Order: sequence, then C-alpha cells, then structure tokens
Amino acid sequence: MAEDMPDPISFDLTTSPGHLLHRAQQFAADRFGEAVATSGLTQRQFAVLSATHAREGLTQTQLVMATGIDRSTLAELVARMVRNGLLVREKLADDARANAIHLSEHGRQLVEGATVGAREADAAILGALPISKRKSFLKMLKRIASTLESGEASEKRARDLAKEKTKKKKAKIKAQAQAATPD
Amino acid sequence: MAEDMPDPISFDLTTSPGHLLHRAQQFAADRFGEAVATSGLTQRQFAVLSATHAREGLTQTQLVMATGIDRSTLAELVARMVRNGLLVREKLADDARANAIHLSEHGRQLVEGATVGAREADAAILGALPISKRKSFLKMLKRIASTLESGEASEKRARDLAKEKTKKKKAKIKAQAQAATPD
Repeated sequence: MAEDMPDPISFDLTTSPGHLLHRAQQFAADRFGEAVATSGLTQRQFAVLSATHAREGLTQTQLVMATGIDRSTLAELVARMVRNGLLVREKLADDARANAIHLSEHGRQLVEGATVGAREADAAILGALPISKRKSFLKMLKRIASTLESGEASEKRARDLAKEKTKKKKAKIKAQAQAATPD
Repeated sequence: MAEDMPDPISFDLTTSPGHLLHRAQQFAADRFGEAVATSGLTQRQFAVLSATHAREGLTQTQLVMATGIDRSTLAELVARMVRNGLLVREKLADDARANAIHLSEHGRQLVEGATVGAREADAAILGALPISKRKSFLKMLKRIASTLESGEASEKRARDLAKEKTKKKKAKIKAQAQAATPD
C-alpha cells in the first residue's frame, strides 16, 4: 500500500521539533517584547544585564556560563552594550587579559524595569502547560540547549584540532624542504 | 532570614522558560542553518515551502494554519518568496480574493534538498532527550505555541473591537452634531 511507503521528501511540520521550537520561541519572544517594550531590550541583552545584575564584576567567561550565549556572540554583544552605555568594563588588576563587567546606572534602571515584564512573559509561557509538566519541560529545554551547545563546542574543537594538524604538517613539510635545500 | 525574602528585582535565568526556550531555539536554529546551508533557506522559508510541497495550491489562510506563522508575517514572507522565484501565485477562478500558492521549480528543488538536513537537525534536537520524553516534549511545545498564539489573536480581536467601538461612537457624535446644526 502507498501508505506503507513514506514519501522520501515529505516533511511533517506538526511533529518537527525544530519547527515547533521555532514557533513556541517566536510567540514567547513576541510576548517578551510586549512585556518589556518600554525598555527596548532584546531577550539576549536582558539575559546579559540580568546575569550582571545578579553578580556584578563578573568576567566575560562567567557571563558565557551564566547566559549560555556562545563566546564570540557574547563578546560582540558586550562590546555593543558598553558602547551604548548599558555596561561598564573595568580592567582587573591581577589579570591583564580579563575585564570585570558592571552595569551602568542606565543599564541597572533598564534591567530592573524589565524584570517585571520578563516575569510576566515567563508566567504566560508556563501558564500554557499543566503545573505537573512545567519542571520537566524546563529540564528538557536545558538538556537541548546544553547538548547542542556542547556538540557545537566539540565540533569546533575537532575543527580547531584539524586546523592545528594541517598547520603542523605544513610546518614539517616546510622544514623538510628547507633542510633539503642546499645552502 | 534573608533567604526567605526574595530580591524583588532578582531574576533567575537558569529557571526562566523564556530564556531556556531562547537558548534551545538558538542552538536548534544554528544546527538547522548548518544542515541546510547550501539551500540558504531560513526556518520560516523552509516551513512555507514544506507546507506547500505537502499541499500544492493551498491558500494563504491554509498556509497560516499549516505553519503557525501569523497572517501578516506570512503575507510579507509569501510576497517576498514570490518575488525571489520560490513560490508562484495563481488566481482562483471561483474566488477573486484568494490565490492558490504553488512551488516554483527552483522552490521545489530547494525544499527537496533541504528536507534531509532539516530531518538531521530534528534528530539532533530529539537526540538530546530520553526517548520516553520526546512525545511529551513536542506536545508541550505545541501547547505553548497555540496558547500564546490564540492569546495574541484574542488580544488583537479585543483591540479591533475597541477600535470599532471608538469609530462608531465618533460617527454617532458626528451624526448628532450634524443633526443639531441648523441648515
């Protein structure tokens, strides 16, 4: 029967985790946008301000851990937020490479104002689920975020390692070529 | 004790459904982007092409139902995809207002090529969850999408109704003013 042979190129949006995640996130983002509209903050900016509010003076590495935003995206985001006067960078005396990140007064006012709205948006999301399912739902989202995240990190490590190998190989060939060339 | 009095402006990202949904979606979108990179399609474009592939000749209203994309966003998206040669619009003889939407040959090739990648991305997402939890996770995402969606729709209806009332009131006042004015 035709039904036993699935169309090799058919795709069911109604059971696609990627599509459903995108839809759920879209509406959650709209809700967040409405709830914090006066602040003009994006979800990402709010996450950075909120993590800094909870732990003033943290480093960029600690911000990566606290927000789950990948390192390069976070670096750009923080730089922009420093330029826009939401964050302040302070050189750490004991580590020339690291900066302590603080809220500016404007950043503090924005995040404190937006927190009520962010909580409302969160309540609307959870409100869509039976109480008994909420904890498990959050746990699953965390698993997805951290699994895909570490997958990407390990893929990046593999790419970096491959690059490193190629580089060493090239250096070796170059060294051999130089050794073989008479002076 | 201080622990009994939560900071009124503290916000815990690690238990925020909005933040976790954003993180999970971010990584899922990255994964999708890598998997379908050669097609250059966004998740939304893929959803529209995929729904059209499953049901050639559907109307814009049917596309809203199939993709869960809100009506005004979808209208813009379809218009752009028609301009870019991914979709083709065909006037329906029996309804002057409605159009039947079809894939162009280019659109068909793109969506068929991207389907394998989209399936891989979906497998990576679900792979992060225990098998026993997957069905329930999809169900919860659907509930969130449709609850927030219908909430927004009913808010919009309320706003439209309020506008309509104001309009009627103004028209009434105008009519009364005209009636009161001697010829």
